[in-house]
This record gives sequence, C-alpha cells and structure tokens, in this order.
Amino acid sequence: MTSYIKIPSHLTPSDPQGSELLARERSKATFDVNELTLVLYGAEGLSRFKKILKILESDPTLDKSDIYYMGRNELFKYALRKDKRMIQLAATHKWSADEFNVADKLVDMSGPYGIHQRMFIPTIMGQGTDEQKSKFLTPALKHEIIGCYAQTELGHGSNVQGLETTATYIPETDEFEIHTPHLTAAKWWAGGLGRTANHSVVMARLITNGQDKGPHPFIVQIRDLTTHEPLPGITIGDIGPKFGYNSTDNGFMLFDHVRIPRFNMLSKYSQVTKGTGEYKNPPNEKLSYGTMVFVRSIIILGAGLALARAATISVRYSAVRRQFVDKENPTILPNGQVVETAVLDYTMQQYRLFPVIAQAYAIYFTGEIIINLYKQYIDQSSRGEFSLLADLHASTSGLKSLTTSIAVDSIEDCRRACGGHGYSNFSGFTRFYQDYLPNTTWEGDNYILTQQTARYLFKTYREILHSKQQSEEFSLRSNESPTIAYMLRYLSNPSQKCTVISPSDFKNPEVQLAIYGYRAAYLIARAVDQIDNHKKSWNSMLVEINRISRAHCEYILVHNFILTLQPQTSDSMNEKRRILHNSPSLKTGLTSVCNLFALHTMEKNLSESLESGYLSPKQSEMLRVQISESLNEIRPNAVALVDAFYLPDYLLNSALGRYDGKVYETMIEWASKEPLNGITLDVNPYSDKLFRNDVKAKI
Amino acid sequence: MTSYIKIPSHLTPSDPQGSELLARERSKATFDVNELTLVLYGAEGLSRFKKILKILESDPTLDKSDIYYMGRNELFKYALRKDKRMIQLAATHKWSADEFNVADKLVDMSGPYGIHQRMFIPTIMGQGTDEQKSKFLTPALKHEIIGCYAQTELGHGSNVQGLETTATYIPETDEFEIHTPHLTAAKWWAGGLGRTANHSVVMARLITNGQDKGPHPFIVQIRDLTTHEPLPGITIGDIGPKFGYNSTDNGFMLFDHVRIPRFNMLSKYSQVTKGTGEYKNPPNEKLSYGTMVFVRSIIILGAGLALARAATISVRYSAVRRQFVDKENPTILPNGQVVETAVLDYTMQQYRLFPVIAQAYAIYFTGEIIINLYKQYIDQSSRGEFSLLADLHASTSGLKSLTTSIAVDSIEDCRRACGGHGYSNFSGFTRFYQDYLPNTTWEGDNYILTQQTARYLFKTYREILHSKQQSEEFSLRSNESPTIAYMLRYLSNPSQKCTVISPSDFKNPEVQLAIYGYRAAYLIARAVDQIDNHKKSWNSMLVEINRISRAHCEYILVHNFILTLQPQTSDSMNEKRRILHNSPSLKTGLTSVCNLFALHTMEKNLSESLESGYLSPKQSEMLRVQISESLNEIRPNAVALVDAFYLPDYLLNSALGRYDGKVYETMIEWASKEPLNGITLDVNPYSDKLFRNDVKAKI
Repeated sequence: MTSYIKIPSHLTPSDPQGSELLARERSKATFDVNELTLVLYGAEGLSRFKKILKILESDPTLDKSDIYYMGRNELFKYALRKDKRMIQLAATHKWSADEFNVADKLVDMSGPYGIHQRMFIPTIMGQGTDEQKSKFLTPALKHEIIGCYAQTELGHGSNVQGLETTATYIPETDEFEIHTPHLTAAKWWAGGLGRTANHSVVMARLITNGQDKGPHPFIVQIRDLTTHEPLPGITIGDIGPKFGYNSTDNGFMLFDHVRIPRFNMLSKYSQVTKGTGEYKNPPNEKLSYGTMVFVRSIIILGAGLALARAATISVRYSAVRRQFVDKENPTILPNGQVVETAVLDYTMQQYRLFPVIAQAYAIYFTGEIIINLYKQYIDQSSRGEFSLLADLHASTSGLKSLTTSIAVDSIEDCRRACGGHGYSNFSGFTRFYQDYLPNTTWEGDNYILTQQTARYLFKTYREILHSKQQSEEFSLRSNESPTIAYMLRYLSNPSQKCTVISPSDFKNPEVQLAIYGYRAAYLIARAVDQIDNHKKSWNSMLVEINRISRAHCEYILVHNFILTLQPQTSDSMNEKRRILHNSPSLKTGLTSVCNLFALHTMEKNLSESLESGYLSPKQSEMLRVQISESLNEIRPNAVALVDAFYLPDYLLNSALGRYDGKVYETMIEWASKEPLNGITLDVNPYSDKLFRNDVKAKI
Repeated sequence: MTSYIKIPSHLTPSDPQGSELLARERSKATFDVNELTLVLYGAEGLSRFKKILKILESDPTLDKSDIYYMGRNELFKYALRKDKRMIQLAATHKWSADEFNVADKLVDMSGPYGIHQRMFIPTIMGQGTDEQKSKFLTPALKHEIIGCYAQTELGHGSNVQGLETTATYIPETDEFEIHTPHLTAAKWWAGGLGRTANHSVVMARLITNGQDKGPHPFIVQIRDLTTHEPLPGITIGDIGPKFGYNSTDNGFMLFDHVRIPRFNMLSKYSQVTKGTGEYKNPPNEKLSYGTMVFVRSIIILGAGLALARAATISVRYSAVRRQFVDKENPTILPNGQVVETAVLDYTMQQYRLFPVIAQAYAIYFTGEIIINLYKQYIDQSSRGEFSLLADLHASTSGLKSLTTSIAVDSIEDCRRACGGHGYSNFSGFTRFYQDYLPNTTWEGDNYILTQQTARYLFKTYREILHSKQQSEEFSLRSNESPTIAYMLRYLSNPSQKCTVISPSDFKNPEVQLAIYGYRAAYLIARAVDQIDNHKKSWNSMLVEINRISRAHCEYILVHNFILTLQPQTSDSMNEKRRILHNSPSLKTGLTSVCNLFALHTMEKNLSESLESGYLSPKQSEMLRVQISESLNEIRPNAVALVDAFYLPDYLLNSALGRYDGKVYETMIEWASKEPLNGITLDVNPYSDKLFRNDVKAKI
C-alpha cells in the first residue's frame, strides 16, 4: 500500500523509547520465558508452529498490511484469494489437518471455503454411506465441488427441532422434494453459501408417508457447475454486512419444490426405503454428543489463546504508554528527568489486565485437559464404554459458554484499557473482537448451553441425595469426579464455614477449592429444593440455572489450574509438565497466576459466597487484600507471561502490541497509508462537489 | 440501492406475524404510552422533534438505506455530503442551535464538519477577544473557514499538562513558533483535521522568556484556502480506520517551526505582552469547570437515550422472535396450534433486557435534573456565587463515567440478546455501538474521572468528620445535599443494619436510599481511614476509588428516580411532571421501573453491602425474590416502555427493532441489496481468477 504522506524522518518518540521499556520489563521476569513457552506448546508443537509461520509470513498473498483499510468488497476478494492460496500451500507442503489448522489460526481470517473444509467434508465423512462418500466426498476433497452447511433458518436458530424447511419423500419418482414453506424457513447464515458453494448439506424435516420425522441432513446441488448460477427453484444470496466475519459470504437460500434423488439423504444412521418410504431409526445419539464435546473443547482452548492475544497487546502497550506523574512514587530517568508513569504501574490498570493473563492460562490449561479427556473417552468408546461422556458433555457445554463469554468481555476490556488508541483498527483489537464474537453463539448459544450443564448437575445431585444419603458408591466415584466430590463434601455438613483467618490463607489451594465447591453445591441444593419441593417452574429458575453452570465451571477451571501445578505421577507426566515441575521459579511464577485467577474470579461472584454464609464479611475484606498482593507478585512477570504465549506480530497485526515496542512509529506509518489521504476535498458547504477539480486520486 | 436478488413474493413468515405480536403487546400496557412520551419530552419538545423528523425523512441526501453496505471511503463521502446538506437545511429552515442538535441526533452520523460546529466555534466564542472573534468567528460562522480542535497527541491523552507541542514567543517578530519536538507530540485524533479543516485551535505549551507556562490555545491556519494543501512546515493526514466514527476524518498533524502572529493566541484569559513576552495569568478556573459540567450533563442525558434505543430494538424483537416451546406453559394459537414461545417470555431474557429499560429511565431523569441544576448554577454564577459548582462538578464527573459505562455495556448486552441476527448490521446495533463507544473516553476517561469524584467525597467526609462530629452546619446543608445527608446518617451509627424483613420491603424508597447511602458512606469511611490512618498511597487505592465513585453515583441515580416519582411543590412542578402526577396508572408503571433499577443495580454490587454487614445473607435472598417480582410487574409494559421514548425507525435503522414488527421481511429485503450479490465467482481454487469472465458486475 502506498504511503500518501511523508512523515518527517528525524522525529522519534520522546524518551524513554518503547524498545527500552519492554527490554527492562523482560529483564525483570523471575523465570525463563522460553521454558514457559515449552510448557504451553511442547518442543514439537513449537517447531511446527515456527515452520508454518515462516511460510505464511513470506507469502505475498497472505500479507496483512492492507486489511485494515479494506471495505467489505475488498476484504471478501482478499479472503477468496487467501483461501485459494491456502489450498495451494496445503498441497505444496503436504500439510496435515493439524498443520492446516495452525496455518489457519495464524492467517486468522474467515473465508469463503472455510465451511467446505470444516463442516461439509466432515459431515459427509461422519454421516455418509460408502456410496455417498464416493459420490460427494471424493470430488469435495479435490475441490471439484465446493460445499456449505445450511441448518439455521431466518426464524430458527438454537432450536433445531423447530426448523421449517421440508424434505418430502415422493415414492413415485423415488425423490425428496425440498421446500421452503414460509419466509422464516429461509436458510440463513450458512458460511460460503452466499457466493461460493455449489453444493450444500441442507437440514430439513423429513416427511414420509405423511409423518414428520424431524430434521435430517440432505446433500443438495445448489448451483450450476458451469455457469455458477443457482439451479432452478433455488434462490440464493449473501445475507449482507455483519459486525465481523465480512470476509465470509454467509448466505441465505430458499427452495421452491426442488427435487433431489433419494440417494442424497445422508444415510449412515437413518434411511428411507425405496418405494415404501419406510423410515429406519437412528441408533444411540451418543456418537453425535462425542463430536460436540470435541468441537467445544477446541473452542475452549481457543478462548484461552484469544485471551492471551488480548493480554499480549494490552500488557505490552501498557508498559510503553505513560500517563501522568505518580507524585508519591515518580519515575525518574537516569538523567534525573521526571517522566510520566507507565500505565502498567497503576493498580487500576493491573486490576484490569492481570486477571486477563490469569484467565488465559486457566482456560488454556483446562482446554488441554478436556482435549485429553476427550481422547480417553474415544479410547473407551471404541470398547463400547461411555461412562466419561455424560460428565464431559455437561462440563464442556458450560465451559464453552463460560470461557467464550469471559473471552469476549476480556478482549473488549483489554481494548478499552488501551485508551484512545484501542479504538483504532491499528490496535489489532477491532477486527479481532468482531470476528471472535460469534463464538458466543455458534456451537450452542451461551445462555442455552448452561441449561444442559445445570440439568446434569441436578440429576447427579438428586442421585446422591436419594441414595441413602451419600452411599459408598458415590464416595468411590468421587475420586474420579470432582463434581461428586464437592457435592458429597457439601452434604456432609451444609452449614460448614470457610476456615480462612488471614489474607494469605486464601493462597491455599484446598481453601480455594472448598470455597468454589461449596458455592456450586449450595446453589445446586437450593435450586433442586425450589424445583422439587416448591414446584418452581424451569422457566422461573433460568437466572439461577445460569449462575449454577458458571459456579460449576469456575470450580473446574480452578481445579484444573491447581492440578496442572501439582506434581503428577511420572507416567502421566508428559514432556510439557515435566519442564514445569523441574523449574521451581516457573512454578512459583505460575502459582501467583493461579492464585489471581482463583481469587479474582471469586471476587466477581463474591455475593454468592457471602449469601450462603460460607464466607464472612471479614474474610471478604481479606480476599480483597490478597488479590492486591497477587497483583504485586505478578507485576514483574507481566510482560514475560504474555510473551510466553509466543503470539507473533504476524498474528497480532497490532501497532500497540508489537514485540519491539515501536508503538508510535508504527501508528503514524500505518496512518500515512490511509487511502483517504490520497484525496483533496472541496470544503465549501454550498458546493455540491466533494472533491477539488485537481483531485489527485479518486476514492 | 438495487435489489440483486428476486425474493419470492408469496412467502410470509410463519404465524403469528410480528405485527400481530407487537399489537398484542401494546394492548397489554397498563398505562397510556402517549402520556409517558409527554413526560419525557413535553408537548413542545415532541412537536419540534416531529417537525424536524419530517424534513429529514424526506431528504434524499439524508436517506439511510445504503449506509450499512458502505466501506470507509463511501461512508466518508456520504458524511461529507450529509454535513453540507445539514448546513444548507439549517439555513433554509432557520434552525436554532437546539433544533440543529435534534436534527443531528436523528441523522446520527458523525461527519467532517462536526468539530467545526461543536468545538472550534465555541472555543473562539468562549476564549477569544472581540478582535479575535471578528477575525475568526465571523468567517467560521459563514463557513468561509472550517476549523478543528487539536489537543490530544500521539503520546498524550488524558493528561493535558503532559502535552509536548510548543508555542514559543519570538519577540523579534512578535510571533509564536509552533513546533513538534518528538513523534509523540504529533497531534492525533482531531475530528475534521484529516482532510477537511483549514484552521485549527492548537493546544500547545506556551514558552516565553524561557519559561514554560503550560498548554494554551492558539489559532493556526493549517491549509491553503485555495489549493486546500497543508501550509509549509505542516504535515497533516487522516489517522486511518477505526472501530467506529469512520465517517469522520480524525487527523494527525506535525509542525516544523511554524510561525503565527502573536494575535492568534486566544487571549480572553491569558495574554503575552508584545515585545517583552510578559505573561499574564488566567483568572479563576471555575468558568471552565462550568462548561465541563454542561458537556457532561448532555452526555448523561445522551446515555439515557442510547440505552432507550438499545432497549427498543431488543425488546421489540424479543416480542417477535420465538424459540423452543416452554412445555410447562406453552403458547397456543387460537386455532389450537402450539407455537414456540416468544423469547420475551423467558425469565432469563427479561433479566437481561428489563434492567436496560430501567437504566434508560433512571439515567434520562438524572440527566434532566443535572441540566436543571446546571441552569441554576449559571443563574447563581452570574451573581458571583459558585456554591453549587463543586458538588455538581464531582457528581457529573462520576455520572458521566458511570452512565456511559452502563450504556456501552448494555448496548452490547442488548445486541447479544438478539441472538444471531444481533450480529448483522441490519440489527441496527453494530454501527450504533461502535459510534457510541468513544463516549467512555472523551470528555474525561471513565476511569480517571472517578478519581475526581472520590477526591471530592473524601474532602467532604473529612470536613464533616473533623467538624466537632457532625456540626449543625452540616445538618442544615444536608437538606440540600444528599451527599452530606448520607454521610451524616452513616456517622450517626456506623454499625446500623438494614431493616428489611420481607422481600416487598425492598420496594420502599426509604429502604433503598438507606442501603445505597450506607454503602457509599461505608466505602468512603474505610478508604479515608486507609489513607489518613494507614498511609496507603493514592495509587494503591485506585480500585477502591473507582468503586466509591460508582457507589456514590448509583446513589444519585436512585435518589433522582425516586424524586421524579414524588409529588413536588406545585411551583417547581413543570408540565412534564404534572402529567406524571395526574396519572396514577403511569406512576404505578414507572414505580416498578424505578424499583427494578434500584434493586437490580443493588444486586450487581451486592457483595459490598454484604461485606459491610449492612445487609444480611437472608436479606440478600429476599432481594433476589423481589427482583423477580419486579420483572413480572414490568412484563406487560415492556413494549410500551420502549415505545414511549418515541425513537423513530429513521433513527433506529433496524430490521429487528421496527415499530411494525416486520422483522423477517426486512432482513431478507435488505440482504437482497448486498452489493456482493451482484458478482459471480470463479470457485476453482487452482485458478487465480476471482470472477467468472461473464461476470455481471464488478466490486
């Protein structure tokens, strides 16, 4: 992109320079940042990451210098080019699925082919018969056909059972007729549908012999492979501009009695018999729950990384940005000059940012643990055992909801903590936030998901309660299930109190877990009592239900962070954990982070622990003292803790969060490239001309 | 804008239709919505509003149909055209400043001339001498010159005293030399500077006789009036794309030893003497505080209206949008068909949205009261009396911070409560949110402002504390000052307890005020003790300080809402209040809203009242019961309460929030106009072409 304005080259920011400030911060760290990076990614993961980054950084098509200046049309063209290029690179470098995902995360932009890779292909793989795979999957993998996934409708989102689009079996021709009976049945949101896809998985109500069998997946060719025009009876379009995701052509689609062969109903699980139209039931639904668990665990890990990204930008910039002189404790340069204080030294800024660092670590570690649990479950399920699934499904539902909600709020908090410059696209926050937002809605709306978690918790609690009061069976199971453990502990003495007598007692992991466990159990017990004994309706309990899911999931996050820091039996200890446990300085540093996470999260919902009587007002004051202590402990490590996530400038694309601290130089360099700077206005308000006749450029 | 796609015209949304649903909601209201509109705006205000709306709605230049599809360049061109047109309309219709403001709010888009009207002209009016006014103000009013206001620098925002740009007096030529010594001193953010203005107020450090007198305002011509190019030594550009406000050319500017006549220093208050360079001091700063109070009170009222706008869209859409069947209480059509339940009937949705309605009313009423107090102060100050100012300045600082923070959070909450469609620009939320955001930063950063409020509260508290324990003087002043009243009440018995014994006791305004007053006073007392007796540094208290400002300002909001609902002595009762007090049904309806505001806000910070011991855990449970009761009371009036704000579709520009409920029809109609729908892709990933050869349109 051209620079339209020549910035005087002799000017530098006033001292101290950003690079010096960050260097000073880095030298203060109490642990080795490279070790922490290895704890997060492992040596192999890190080297793969570096290898792929190198390819992307040097590819002109994937250069990100211009994207902040692009309107929707330019952005979509960029994304289309980018998606084509990624397919070419994947072929050239023979990337595995994992490697492709790493590249995709680094390129960090949704595009028109995304759903083809992430939904269309996996759906045929998972739900198609062998014949269907050879007809649809083979050309899809070669990109001879491009697919999308059309489920949500204009009037129907979370409630899949409420979809209106129909697929009626016509025995005479052995076909299904796909039809949109109302405007509210228009397919809506499908990524890649708007302009790109020529095939679609369409979720439609299967009607056969006059009976409605509910939504099922069908493969429908939607555009002509030669002209790329919609096929007869099909109306398709892009749904228009959105808050984010404008690089993707989310689309709408309506069907007017469109016929497809019976063959096109994905039939691995459910089938319709030729001629008779007889419907065969799907087996156990547990398999599809497994996929949901996996997708959600990836989202949880992603929430951790999103938080790390937000924290990286805002912590680095807060070390460079200076504001006011703290008169009681002024910053003095070696030459004696008093300069403004770095905003990172103000306690309010620490209170805003350090909890986000802590959230990043807490959620990342839980994401890893859940993915491991999922792998264990897959192992089990191949032996026909499903015992892990119920707890895992309930926890991942609530955790997906909680962690993505934390992430969107904290990303925006970090942006605002960057002051005025946080509002510039150059901050690296605006598109990031806007594109991250759908995580709160897709793969289960964050509010609705909490009902699934609460339902499971109520069921478990009732089982314990009615089993001759905490039978041996549950005591045994409590070793494996922290959920059962905290419920049993609560029931052993519902009027127990917190034992803290000084602020530092709050650093004890046992104390932390006891507080979180009591809180969750107390809320569950109260809600079950309301429903079972006072006949409260489910609807009247929704606010409470949301609170309960959060309480339970916060317990899990704290539990997992503590677990990560505890030495484990050697056989379960992988390479990453071994590094952590061999480095006392690293463990000390991360323990402060764990404490801050546990205590700050506790403070946010303090009223629940005070209301139950488990915490006393005096203990509540001690908690606030200890939080302030944790912030002090983290202060010297703040920059190292974000550096450890190793998020490269290529990903951050941020003037404020640059590794080298050259904030102001970058802000003005990028501003000089704003295309508006190429035009000259006619500013007379009574002239209808916008530009002067001798205008240099058109926009 | 062209429609690129033909939507089948025979399709309608499935029953029940949005228009029927909203009609049913409106028929359920327990009061006359037109009366409430008059309570908010008065008859005269409403008729002015309608008159101006009519002009704008029918003006083709001000048509908003296309703005959601525009990239930055198109948006800027639209805004430039719009700003020119507004100046023409103001001249044609002889609009007063108030009328222009109404029009500006309805058009609802920042533009390149905005700062000329709102900052450049008022600054010369307020700080220029008569000679300066005739030289600069006269042509500015005729738009012969266009100005901006350059204060913030690349490295300096809130701390005006830290600005680096210098204006050095040169006695030899009787000039000032304006200079940018470092990159961090580049002027940054000034609206209209980037491409539009040819003059600027420049805040620069006045240096005379080697002494630095701190920042002062200077008028600098920055562009040639003929060529519109920057004058020699001046570098200017637009600062590039932002989260919002992309219709405005916020700019940057650097000076390389640029000379201006001594005459150009705005000299109503401070002067530099010709030749000697002698500096004359400015008088009392109180005058500028007055202006700040006024600007902030307008922002507070605006926060109320922004909340009303967010609530209008989300409440109306929640009445139309249906999801799942509430099995315990299903919705059944007259024909016996069970349909999905309107999301407004779910308690979680009510808990998310109704508090926003309550915030809108609470903040709007406080905004009105503060503007009235400001008018009283202006009256007083013209008689040389300034007694109202300190309290007013402290309260408006904290209230500006609190109300705009509430507004940004609630706008985003309302957007998310609209589910997937909230993410579409057509929701009317995305640009609205993005453009509203700077309110948290400008006119005082929201975090920094709370320190001003707390400083005043600490001072007041110390005065009372050290005045022989609550002397008569303060008892007298407490009649006028609710601040002093709650402090005295606290000091009379610091260990007092809340008297509530049943949930409905929380509806008592005395009880509500006692809780809010105790909370604020308790936090203030504790902080003053920490600072004065335990030598805690100011920096270490910043988190607490922020909490204290919020506690105080929430007290004020509740106090003012309660005051609004109380019958007042007839002479102070204006037309609006008279309507309210003559309508018992309206008063009952608004009382529920007031209760919800007081109780929901209380719940959000419940831990503070529990920690102080003023509220017991049992009372805390009762509070939650009463909140649920308040939501039930508001349910039938939800749509009427947002309708009453009378925000027209022209302003909302929302498919979801339309007055007529035609949500789905509008979504698809607007989608069909997306420009991307005019192009046909080449989807072969190994072809570098993006479009087919026979492409219909270019983007």
